[in-house]
Amino acid sequence: KIDGQRLWDSLMEMAKIGPGVAGGNNRQTLTDADGEGRALFQKWCEGAGMSMGLDTMGNMFARREGTDPDALPVYVGSHLDTQPTGGKYDGVLGVLAGLELVRTLNDLDIKTRHPIVVTNWTNEEGTRFAPAMLASGVFAGLHDEEWANQRTDAEGKTFGDELKRIGWKGDEPVGERKMHAFFELHIEQGPILEAEGKDIGVVTHGQGLEWTQLTITGKDAHTGSTPMPLRRNAGLGMARVLEKVNEIALAHAPNAVGAAGHIEVFPNSRNVIPGKAVFTVDFRSPDIKVLTEMVSQMKKAAQKICDDMELQVEFEKVGGFDPVEFDQGCVTAIRSAAERLGYSHMELISGAGHDACWINQVAPTAMVMCPCVDGLSHNEAEEITLEWARAGADVLLHAVVETAGV
Amino acid sequence: KIDGQRLWDSLMEMAKIGPGVAGGNNRQTLTDADGEGRALFQKWCEGAGMSMGLDTMGNMFARREGTDPDALPVYVGSHLDTQPTGGKYDGVLGVLAGLELVRTLNDLDIKTRHPIVVTNWTNEEGTRFAPAMLASGVFAGLHDEEWANQRTDAEGKTFGDELKRIGWKGDEPVGERKMHAFFELHIEQGPILEAEGKDIGVVTHGQGLEWTQLTITGKDAHTGSTPMPLRRNAGLGMARVLEKVNEIALAHAPNAVGAAGHIEVFPNSRNVIPGKAVFTVDFRSPDIKVLTEMVSQMKKAAQKICDDMELQVEFEKVGGFDPVEFDQGCVTAIRSAAERLGYSHMELISGAGHDACWINQVAPTAMVMCPCVDGLSHNEAEEITLEWARAGADVLLHAVVETAGV
Ligand SMILES: NC(=O)NCCC(=O)O
Ligand SMILES: NC(=O)NCCC(=O)O
Repeated sequence: KIDGQRLWDSLMEMAKIGPGVAGGNNRQTLTDADGEGRALFQKWCEGAGMSMGLDTMGNMFARREGTDPDALPVYVGSHLDTQPTGGKYDGVLGVLAGLELVRTLNDLDIKTRHPIVVTNWTNEEGTRFAPAMLASGVFAGLHDEEWANQRTDAEGKTFGDELKRIGWKGDEPVGERKMHAFFELHIEQGPILEAEGKDIGVVTHGQGLEWTQLTITGKDAHTGSTPMPLRRNAGLGMARVLEKVNEIALAHAPNAVGAAGHIEVFPNSRNVIPGKAVFTVDFRSPDIKVLTEMVSQMKKAAQKICDDMELQVEFEKVGGFDPVEFDQGCVTAIRSAAERLGYSHMELISGAGHDACWINQVAPTAMVMCPCVDGLSHNEAEEITLEWARAGADVLLHAVVETAGV
Repeated sequence: KIDGQRLWDSLMEMAKIGPGVAGGNNRQTLTDADGEGRALFQKWCEGAGMSMGLDTMGNMFARREGTDPDALPVYVGSHLDTQPTGGKYDGVLGVLAGLELVRTLNDLDIKTRHPIVVTNWTNEEGTRFAPAMLASGVFAGLHDEEWANQRTDAEGKTFGDELKRIGWKGDEPVGERKMHAFFELHIEQGPILEAEGKDIGVVTHGQGLEWTQLTITGKDAHTGSTPMPLRRNAGLGMARVLEKVNEIALAHAPNAVGAAGHIEVFPNSRNVIPGKAVFTVDFRSPDIKVLTEMVSQMKKAAQKICDDMELQVEFEKVGGFDPVEFDQGCVTAIRSAAERLGYSHMELISGAGHDACWINQVAPTAMVMCPCVDGLSHNEAEEITLEWARAGADVLLHAVVETAGV
């Protein structure tokens, strides 16, 4: 069993880097704080006897050697970047639980046949640079590396330039590593495990996502002297589309969700009718047909709304992945570990996207989840207990060791 | 008659300072560009033999002496600041027409009995620091100066600090000047004059305005893993309020308008359900009862929407003025000038707020308007013709000279 207190202390230590404004974290990808977090993780890994690899997307790979020189490594990890108002566990738990399981193996002097590699994937959150899970997506061959390097943040800075600036662009070509398997521990970010009173979620599937960025164009005009019938209010058009997004998601519930988290109007002046609105609609479903149908209904509705209001609308897909089915062998390894350890467990479909969803395309992959308080995530108040973290990391340890062999 | 070409050349020269991105201007108040525009105006005024006064709110007063040492000055002017994506004429025409009328009097060697003072009022637009017409409001005793100095922009900088920073805070106590009368020439910013084919709008009234800033609070949460029924989506609440604002304004049309130009959600991340939305609703009407009624209906509707969605809502009044009736004597001076000069004219109610609306409370005041293409303003494509500018400035000259006496 892992050392729950040591894992917890590491989580609290990492959370000091890039503190938020309300007890959580703002350690967005490729910021100085991200660089600091990476340096701390590297120091810890080297302290645990691992050697660090770094690829051209900034993905970090800390390796513990195995006994069989020909055996492919078992990978384990998640991401250290956070939302702008993020929690202390989303992603971080999965990386530091990987470190903790290596520390535990060191303490117990256990050698595995396959090497073990603990990974930190760059830009999982996708807030600063869309889409989410960008670097694991490049690793798995889903995105072109050059395209990824050109992704820009709100200030127009590119992913490639920012990665160089913080000093974490490596030499290793991205995606060349072969994996025996990949395991990711993550907090659930939803309310099911807590409500059902289970310690462990055995993740069998991940729901799919599509991000559509809408740009609605009307005409900037004076809010006071422009008669109502002459207005072409892009902000009002957006409001109507937001209502439709909600309606469409509800019509497909419980197998679907939808909302817009990113919303901007231009010129954003109190006495100017917005001439432009830019916002991103996030639809998700475990069923690809439902996902596709929602996006198409939304586009049709938005087109109609805009036509009726003499507005223009453009759609751009800025992120997306199909629903995922994880590897049966890896899922079984997780379920058996939970059973062996006596933790209560249930099967889950992940509501969020994870690096594991991409890696699943190039290696046998599965995920372990632990509960989080009130199902709250992407919020500085995100909280878990030491016991939940311990259970998740224990299951991870056992699944990894079983897969890596002794 | 004034020199239309000289006026036009001055407008084009001023428009070079703080250029926009689409042919208009971004010369927002208390920016470096605002400072440059002020310096150019001062140079021109001094070149025309005027002396410059500057008060503690940064209001500029260029004085041409009269023949009677005891006579109060006739004031004329508007503002040089622009919207972030503003036009070349909104405000600027009124200031530079004041300069042009002094140049014309100089050319014709005409002395008036009352001095003439050409004014540039600070922060008319209200985009960077709400409310609009801030410094003329302090001048007229409507706002406290200390409160005005504490107004902050989106970056948290204060009006007072920024005024000092650009070097345009004067020593003269604000509001001590007494005026014989105040005249403001402004583009209509609406479509009526052009549609009716009139050269001149004789402005008899100004409609009232109320700016209500709403802060809707829900709960930041993950867009993927948070089930629909558990969401407290502040962005969706905002969308519903925006629809209501439009409904309420339409229900009171044609004597009312309403929209929101300022819209923000937090943390503004694609995969975070907005936990907070902040936006400003702009309602206007020439009828104070209608204005008050719209604001109250909006608040009631927003409260109900938010209660139903388990959201909190707070209302803050961040700007407002009652409908205005201009001085009959000044209005008559404008109408007579238009008639004498043979310009076609009609009475107008100003749809926008103007510095004249505040100054009307402390001095006999009226406004002249000229048409603008398609009624478009608060847009970089704002356009007028040299002939329209000439007619407006001619009428201004005659009304001012008649009032100032020869
Ligand atoms: N786990 C997580 O929050 N990932 C971010 C990508 C997503 O929006 O699902
Ligand atoms: N004239 C003008 O655009 N003034 C700004 C204040 C307002 O919003 O009416």
